[in-house]
Amino acid sequence: MTWTISNPELSQQALLNMESIFALGNGYLGVRGNFEEGYGEDMSTIRGTYLNAFHDVIEIPYGEKLFAFPDTQQKLVNHIDAQSVLIYLGDEKEPFRLDHGTIISFERRLFMDKGYSERIVHWRSPEGKEIKLTFRRLVSFTHRELFALHVRIEPVNYNGQVRIVSTVNGKVKNYTNPNDPRVGAGHAERMTVTETGVKGSDAYVVDETMASKLRAACVTRHRLDADADVQLENGAGEVTYTATLSLTGPIGFTKYNLYTDSLRHGQDMIERGIQLQESLKELSFEDLLAEQIEYLNEYWKSADVVIQNDDQLQEGIRFNLFQLLQSAGRDKHSNISAKGLSGEGYEGHYFWDTEIYMFPVFLMTQPDIARQLLLYRYSTLEQARARAREMGHRQGALFPWRTISGTECSSFFPSGTAQYHISADIAYSYIQYHLAEQDQDFLLSYGAEVLIETARLWADIGHYYNGAFHIDEVTGPDEYTCCVNNNYYTNVMAKHNLKWAAKSCSILKSYDAHGFQSLRDRLGVTEDEISAWAKAAEAMLLPYDEALGINPQDDTFLRKAVWDFENTPEDKYPLLLNYHPLTIYRYQVCKQADTVLAHFLLEDEQSYETIQRSYDYYEGITTHDSSLSSCIFSIMASKIGSMDKAYEYFIETARLDLDNTHGNTKDGLHMANMGGTWMSIVYGFAGMRLKESGLSLSPAIPKDWEKYAFRLNFRGRLIGVSIEKDGVTLEIVEGDAIEIKLYNEAVTLKAGQPVQKSLAK
Amino acid sequence: MTWTISNPELSQQALLNMESIFALGNGYLGVRGNFEEGYGEDMSTIRGTYLNAFHDVIEIPYGEKLFAFPDTQQKLVNHIDAQSVLIYLGDEKEPFRLDHGTIISFERRLFMDKGYSERIVHWRSPEGKEIKLTFRRLVSFTHRELFALHVRIEPVNYNGQVRIVSTVNGKVKNYTNPNDPRVGAGHAERMTVTETGVKGSDAYVVDETMASKLRAACVTRHRLDADADVQLENGAGEVTYTATLSLTGPIGFTKYNLYTDSLRHGQDMIERGIQLQESLKELSFEDLLAEQIEYLNEYWKSADVVIQNDDQLQEGIRFNLFQLLQSAGRDKHSNISAKGLSGEGYEGHYFWDTEIYMFPVFLMTQPDIARQLLLYRYSTLEQARARAREMGHRQGALFPWRTISGTECSSFFPSGTAQYHISADIAYSYIQYHLAEQDQDFLLSYGAEVLIETARLWADIGHYYNGAFHIDEVTGPDEYTCCVNNNYYTNVMAKHNLKWAAKSCSILKSYDAHGFQSLRDRLGVTEDEISAWAKAAEAMLLPYDEALGINPQDDTFLRKAVWDFENTPEDKYPLLLNYHPLTIYRYQVCKQADTVLAHFLLEDEQSYETIQRSYDYYEGITTHDSSLSSCIFSIMASKIGSMDKAYEYFIETARLDLDNTHGNTKDGLHMANMGGTWMSIVYGFAGMRLKESGLSLSPAIPKDWEKYAFRLNFRGRLIGVSIEKDGVTLEIVEGDAIEIKLYNEAVTLKAGQPVQKSLAK
Repeated sequence: MTWTISNPELSQQALLNMESIFALGNGYLGVRGNFEEGYGEDMSTIRGTYLNAFHDVIEIPYGEKLFAFPDTQQKLVNHIDAQSVLIYLGDEKEPFRLDHGTIISFERRLFMDKGYSERIVHWRSPEGKEIKLTFRRLVSFTHRELFALHVRIEPVNYNGQVRIVSTVNGKVKNYTNPNDPRVGAGHAERMTVTETGVKGSDAYVVDETMASKLRAACVTRHRLDADADVQLENGAGEVTYTATLSLTGPIGFTKYNLYTDSLRHGQDMIERGIQLQESLKELSFEDLLAEQIEYLNEYWKSADVVIQNDDQLQEGIRFNLFQLLQSAGRDKHSNISAKGLSGEGYEGHYFWDTEIYMFPVFLMTQPDIARQLLLYRYSTLEQARARAREMGHRQGALFPWRTISGTECSSFFPSGTAQYHISADIAYSYIQYHLAEQDQDFLLSYGAEVLIETARLWADIGHYYNGAFHIDEVTGPDEYTCCVNNNYYTNVMAKHNLKWAAKSCSILKSYDAHGFQSLRDRLGVTEDEISAWAKAAEAMLLPYDEALGINPQDDTFLRKAVWDFENTPEDKYPLLLNYHPLTIYRYQVCKQADTVLAHFLLEDEQSYETIQRSYDYYEGITTHDSSLSSCIFSIMASKIGSMDKAYEYFIETARLDLDNTHGNTKDGLHMANMGGTWMSIVYGFAGMRLKESGLSLSPAIPKDWEKYAFRLNFRGRLIGVSIEKDGVTLEIVEGDAIEIKLYNEAVTLKAGQPVQKSLAK
Repeated sequence: MTWTISNPELSQQALLNMESIFALGNGYLGVRGNFEEGYGEDMSTIRGTYLNAFHDVIEIPYGEKLFAFPDTQQKLVNHIDAQSVLIYLGDEKEPFRLDHGTIISFERRLFMDKGYSERIVHWRSPEGKEIKLTFRRLVSFTHRELFALHVRIEPVNYNGQVRIVSTVNGKVKNYTNPNDPRVGAGHAERMTVTETGVKGSDAYVVDETMASKLRAACVTRHRLDADADVQLENGAGEVTYTATLSLTGPIGFTKYNLYTDSLRHGQDMIERGIQLQESLKELSFEDLLAEQIEYLNEYWKSADVVIQNDDQLQEGIRFNLFQLLQSAGRDKHSNISAKGLSGEGYEGHYFWDTEIYMFPVFLMTQPDIARQLLLYRYSTLEQARARAREMGHRQGALFPWRTISGTECSSFFPSGTAQYHISADIAYSYIQYHLAEQDQDFLLSYGAEVLIETARLWADIGHYYNGAFHIDEVTGPDEYTCCVNNNYYTNVMAKHNLKWAAKSCSILKSYDAHGFQSLRDRLGVTEDEISAWAKAAEAMLLPYDEALGINPQDDTFLRKAVWDFENTPEDKYPLLLNYHPLTIYRYQVCKQADTVLAHFLLEDEQSYETIQRSYDYYEGITTHDSSLSSCIFSIMASKIGSMDKAYEYFIETARLDLDNTHGNTKDGLHMANMGGTWMSIVYGFAGMRLKESGLSLSPAIPKDWEKYAFRLNFRGRLIGVSIEKDGVTLEIVEGDAIEIKLYNEAVTLKAGQPVQKSLAK
């Protein structure tokens, strides 16, 4: 059961949420869990199909537009809809619809070990015709363009005519809600149909985005395992397949939809789609399912986290890991958007969420995907350089706060562009990759350049004051205080960035002097510059408050009044939807972990006591209005030994979408939080860290648990970690022996020789 | 000559600027100096007629809209155009146009002592017909609805048919320039014609704003002092008057345009217009001119500033004072917009400019207008209370940063709504009015309520930290640093506001215990509250830097890097048009005087030495990108005895629009700067101050001047002040004896007994 999400609800709100929960994807293509037959007329649905990074460009409106405010932003577009399959019964052509007739039974399931979803409906029409329908669908992990849909129609009390009408519809719109800034206002219609047609048994539709002029095709082939009168009709903006047959026993109907686009497939998208159809023609739906299972077996081998005696949480963590796999882009055009491929919230943009909340999961379970995520950022480096110039910097690269193709898409700079930390976050992920994989060639080809260009940004933005290196007028991760000086998070991350830019130069000099020299020549890196980075890192101001013994969030944070939590009613949260930003900025109140997050990412910069006191202080003033907050508090609660708290925060993350605790799952899943669940367990409970000194663990176990286990993919090894009340067991599942640290002591793991140790108290 | 602006230029750029320079107005109605006959097809013009406060409401677009961001803003609309008079010559109907034929001579003049403008053109048509045309126009100071236009047509070598075509055109648009945030983007078409017609000899057009549904009418009557065939035709959106006559000698043609609106005239606007036409029917254009002169004589009697031996500056100061008179609203609906009634820049909004830069001129020369400006703000108090609630304050009133009718119209809060100081600025002007006029009834009826509600705002926004009262997260007048803590200007002005709220309570308690009690009851003012204001004022943090001996602009200003002025090319100014706000905020760089302004307005809060050092420090980092800056630096340079600098800064202000030194005079005149010219002389050179201790002067004279003189209207007296190289002469021009201070010594002025004294060195 913990491999399966099942949900029988049919209320409006549940259906909208389930569209996101049952979304299928493979990093390229995503399809929401909409009903093939549609909904009642008075019901709302967000019917969506998305190609990662496939976007239109939209002018950003401003009341007052100032210099270097982005002119345009990008928006993931809702794509050609191939989900529709309508079924009509009898000469009366009674349509199968859940808002008519009688639902005798209804179930739906998402199989996370098998990679498909299923919906079984036992239904009686208003006229009394009874059938059982089984809809199964998958978005293939092995054929990225493929969304396959299978319908089984089984007569119960009815034999007679059935008509199946399947459409491929290019007339699609984006979802909008003018009252929620997190779902784009306006801009609903972003695609026009440029071509529809039929070639042999393939139906195709080509759409083009209105402004960016990206094009994409859906080529669909239908298969029916029964005799029928079949027609394929080219209509206005859509192609319609109609099969009329006489139902006497169960029949199966399959729809193979192949999505190609001009970003990845060139301009011959229809041809490519037809070729792909040909390449799949031997594969039945069952074959495709088998491929999914094989792929997922491999995934779960390294990625699964077992929680032995809590099915709810077990289901939660698996769901989150499954959705991460479904969302991560696998090419240089794409990354992981804030909602994955499950909805349109945040316009399909990529944020720092990737590097800080999701990248670690892939790094330690699927390093190839992690590497691909880094390469995406590398592919946007030129735009980041251009943005830095536009923002007045003489050197360096400033990555955009939110983007699809690499240009800045945030229109409210105090909690957008001002979040310069994203450049250090990206650098951090390159450093983590280096620490995990020690791939010097990657460092030479990609990593060093990113580290150097981001370090140059910090060198340019910062300045010395009283001997300390200051960074002014930026916003940290906590968007409830904006545009401040010396945000602790930003400064400590910039310090790390600067230090590693210098360090990577010295690593590469030793590793490949010639290759490094040519990189230096290309980038014009001077010795003085390298020393200046090291010096700035050394001199970086990390604000510290003597009286409280904590790191203030910024230079003046602790001088502000504390938010009046006592007189803030529950319905005024999240604060950002109920108070003007100036009001929020004016007080000590945090939307999410900020300094606490910095203490997690770079824990060696402060004493344990400072970290502990800071945790206590910030916990008291954090609303967790962001879904990025709880997991970090969980990890840090684990660090300071507050296991009960760690567990409470973990619970917040584990089923956030499954239980719709933030109330907006309908707009898409909270991907960063999903990474956070894994992090809460692996970094939190198990105390995993990855540093220059190597991989280390300091496991503990929540008091409600008997056992939990996970694996780490580290430098070519697969390491099993199993933690029970009475001890931890480490073993090499695959690969050579390796030394890691357990409770700060070196242990050498060898294949076939598990290491056991008692839990530290 | 110094009473007349004359300009013969006909280049495109000059014409656009002259449209603003030659704008006529009376505080209610404004008409730009456009050519009656229009322009060449390839030329651009901003043809404008405005009624003060007559606006449409426009939705503000946002890329990301957060809580309490204003939904809409207001925009002064371009009004029914009654400027057009076309003249056709001969049977060929050759149109008089300056882009055709030959201009034999061209002059135009604005008579600031007579209140009208004149344009004389000697012109030969392509076919050789030669005529002299004299256009004169006035916007009446005594009949606020009236824009009158007189054309004299004088034959030179031509006798024959002349056709005069005059239109009243309701199909008007606003000017837009999408590349300049200071001129509204989009929203060009804001008015629709709802009615046109002819009643007797009156033509009328009624327009309605699209969203706000304000309505206004123009009722026009034509008079021609020659026999002619006259037609009045009602057309699509306009009414056309056509007179055909035989020209044998000079003839005169007058157009009386009366503007009525639903804000001031109720819904019977046409009737009211016709009634007003009737009331004017005995008045010739010459009669109207005589009225103008009479009105202006009265004005200049108190307002004129004489600069004896510099005609350029003399012209400049008179022009500025004339435009101030033309711009100031005289009713509760209207105030003085940033561009007066001379253009559409800043959407016709009212800013703090009124209180800090223009109100003082009226207060000391035309107290009735000053009082009216205060009453306008009082009329918006309820909206300011509502805005404070919306912004999360439990009490008090927050005046909008920019507005017409009283609601917040700024869409970029860091340099908009965050400028909370506007509430203290308004309070300051009420206090200045009290100090000048000692009108306790006004204080009881209006002033105290404003002081109390603004004090309540400060009490709510501020908090105690280490015993000092702090105000966080506001923006001072210097928009090159936004959203800071303890902006010196804001804090010291809030202190004054709080102190005077308490003080006004005690003044009124003595003056009218009963009246005060009823005010207290109405507002629910408690004794504790009054004490709390006094205590907060006392405890107000006024940041001071020990090392530099200056007042920092805010808590962290002096820790930032100084802007790299050396490497900033000339063409990168103004910085706001060439750098992202974050970049500007990051450095010590000021757009305009901020702390220096505070030191002017409340000089007794700091020692002379602190003020002097602050002046020196901030002068080094101020770009004067705002036209509000130079005058304040001039005043303060006078204060610290740098007369050469004071003079240089004064020069910047005196002819800013006449010489188009900011390059955007075409969008309207810089009204605040115009007040600043007067202030530079009166507060600056002459060292005038108005405090609880009364009126004082400390005159000096710029070295290039032989003599300057002005008058002050103070508590019913008109005081003449004349300063020459060898001394100052004070005299009572009108009114009873009064004691004032000269160089800190009391002198008693009596009618007929001028007081003379040597200038202090």
